[in-house]
Amino acid sequence: MSLTVVGSMAFDALETPFGKTDKIVGGAATYISLSASYFVEPVNVVSVVGGDFDQDHIKLMHQRNISTEGVQVKENEKSFFWSGRYFNDMNSRETLVTELNVLGDFDPIIPESYQGCEYLMLGNLAPQVQRTVIERLNVRPKLVVMDTMNFWMDIALDALKETIALVDVLSINDEEARQLSGEYSLVKAAKVIMAMGPKFLIIKKGEHGALLFNEDKVFFAPALPLEEVFDPTGAGDTFAGGFIGYIASTNDTSFENMKRAVIYGSALASFCVEKFGTERLKNLIQEEIDARVQQFVNLVKFTTIEQ
Amino acid sequence: MSLTVVGSMAFDALETPFGKTDKIVGGAATYISLSASYFVEPVNVVSVVGGDFDQDHIKLMHQRNISTEGVQVKENEKSFFWSGRYFNDMNSRETLVTELNVLGDFDPIIPESYQGCEYLMLGNLAPQVQRTVIERLNVRPKLVVMDTMNFWMDIALDALKETIALVDVLSINDEEARQLSGEYSLVKAAKVIMAMGPKFLIIKKGEHGALLFNEDKVFFAPALPLEEVFDPTGAGDTFAGGFIGYIASTNDTSFENMKRAVIYGSALASFCVEKFGTERLKNLIQEEIDARVQQFVNLVKFTTIEQ
Repeated sequence: MSLTVVGSMAFDALETPFGKTDKIVGGAATYISLSASYFVEPVNVVSVVGGDFDQDHIKLMHQRNISTEGVQVKENEKSFFWSGRYFNDMNSRETLVTELNVLGDFDPIIPESYQGCEYLMLGNLAPQVQRTVIERLNVRPKLVVMDTMNFWMDIALDALKETIALVDVLSINDEEARQLSGEYSLVKAAKVIMAMGPKFLIIKKGEHGALLFNEDKVFFAPALPLEEVFDPTGAGDTFAGGFIGYIASTNDTSFENMKRAVIYGSALASFCVEKFGTERLKNLIQEEIDARVQQFVNLVKFTTIEQ
Repeated sequence: MSLTVVGSMAFDALETPFGKTDKIVGGAATYISLSASYFVEPVNVVSVVGGDFDQDHIKLMHQRNISTEGVQVKENEKSFFWSGRYFNDMNSRETLVTELNVLGDFDPIIPESYQGCEYLMLGNLAPQVQRTVIERLNVRPKLVVMDTMNFWMDIALDALKETIALVDVLSINDEEARQLSGEYSLVKAAKVIMAMGPKFLIIKKGEHGALLFNEDKVFFAPALPLEEVFDPTGAGDTFAGGFIGYIASTNDTSFENMKRAVIYGSALASFCVEKFGTERLKNLIQEEIDARVQQFVNLVKFTTIEQ
């Protein structure tokens, strides 16, 4: 099975209570593709970078069987740059700098070799661009998963709803679900959002876990209680990459399998937050992933007894 | 097995986005004893009320095999009264009125018939009063569970820590755990708090579920995603009542059994919030409780497959 991922590849500069970084590699497609690469190959990336992008990171992607054929390089321009500062609780942050640069007029190109991919992950981007990617695929993928943010709800709600109507799975956080639906109860919000088109909805609650909805069914995956969250940047994208990667590797889009995919996504995200940026995602081994998944199993496992 | 519960019996006046109530029966011991009564009998209550207290409620308690022999009645005084208003998100509230009345100089009396109880639940009260109850039991119960609030951390921290050192299980919410420990990470907070004495710690996270800690082990129980939270008053006490009630009924204080107890507590709490005050807790039937517990089982259940 092959997976195509579209999203930003960027430089981030981060400040957390534990320290700060210079420009390091970030971006939705970066985290998604690294995370998914532990499950499926090839992972085909559609993105755009400037001539300043980190070539060592491109090499790392190739080592992990991630194709960058769909990554446009604009030699005389600069890569997308975001700088942010996390507050002490690590759950809230402020944006210090956003420089769109090459992302400002991103026109996604789908290489011929990506055509026919069975799985498509639309990382957070302008909803018009996400829609263009769907339209430029000759064959509708078996499953289209979309991530987005409140930013697009604020400035491009109509375009966002048009794209949402085209996808199978939407992944957003709890505040975004409330904003998009106008409902405070997440159960009610899920009904409103699934009526917009997606058959499946993932509501991410950060340190409080994630909910997966489908029709009248709901599944809850906890987040692992961690001693230390070092840097939450990319956790949502890493989750999405593990989710779609697991589904692609098993080629099973049933609700039962999606539950497992949510757990694998949560496991990958729990690694991501342990170090700055993509550091922890560069060389995971299968045994680590399996052991982390087992921690999720143990965390919620209880047996019922007959009274 | 017998269970003794100490805590307030009170009148509450509530305002929520869904409506408001006149004075209705509330208080920690009220919710705890009603909830526990679905698991164990007798439930022995130690409390104090004024001459104004609701006699119909006392009758209801007797019907549910809850003993009020330890409930002092001060005929010429008034019962504890609390009035509060919930905000739209139902997770935060403001106190409008607090009248301690009979609770101001509460000196708990343990009837002879309560002596020898195997289980003790200390509902939220002044920590000195909670400690007095422990001291007035001739035989140390098999398990002592304590609930408390940030209020006592603010005004009586030393006395609170002295009582905490005497109990087996402490039940507090996430913000209280952070305040008591000085640690933001709940995993770190749990270590600090268990070092104060309790072998087990429950951290309640409201709509985000609850964590149970013991040594290096942790269990997570989700809250049920509900369409509507009508009135959260008493949910924490109802949780505690279901928790200790289940443990008393099974007479098993192992970590494995406490996991089940957390689920039963969560199930009872999920009923509590469906109507104002104690309304929904007055006449549950076993089939409803079993079905609700099954919803918790289904919510987190997933199967792992060999890849």
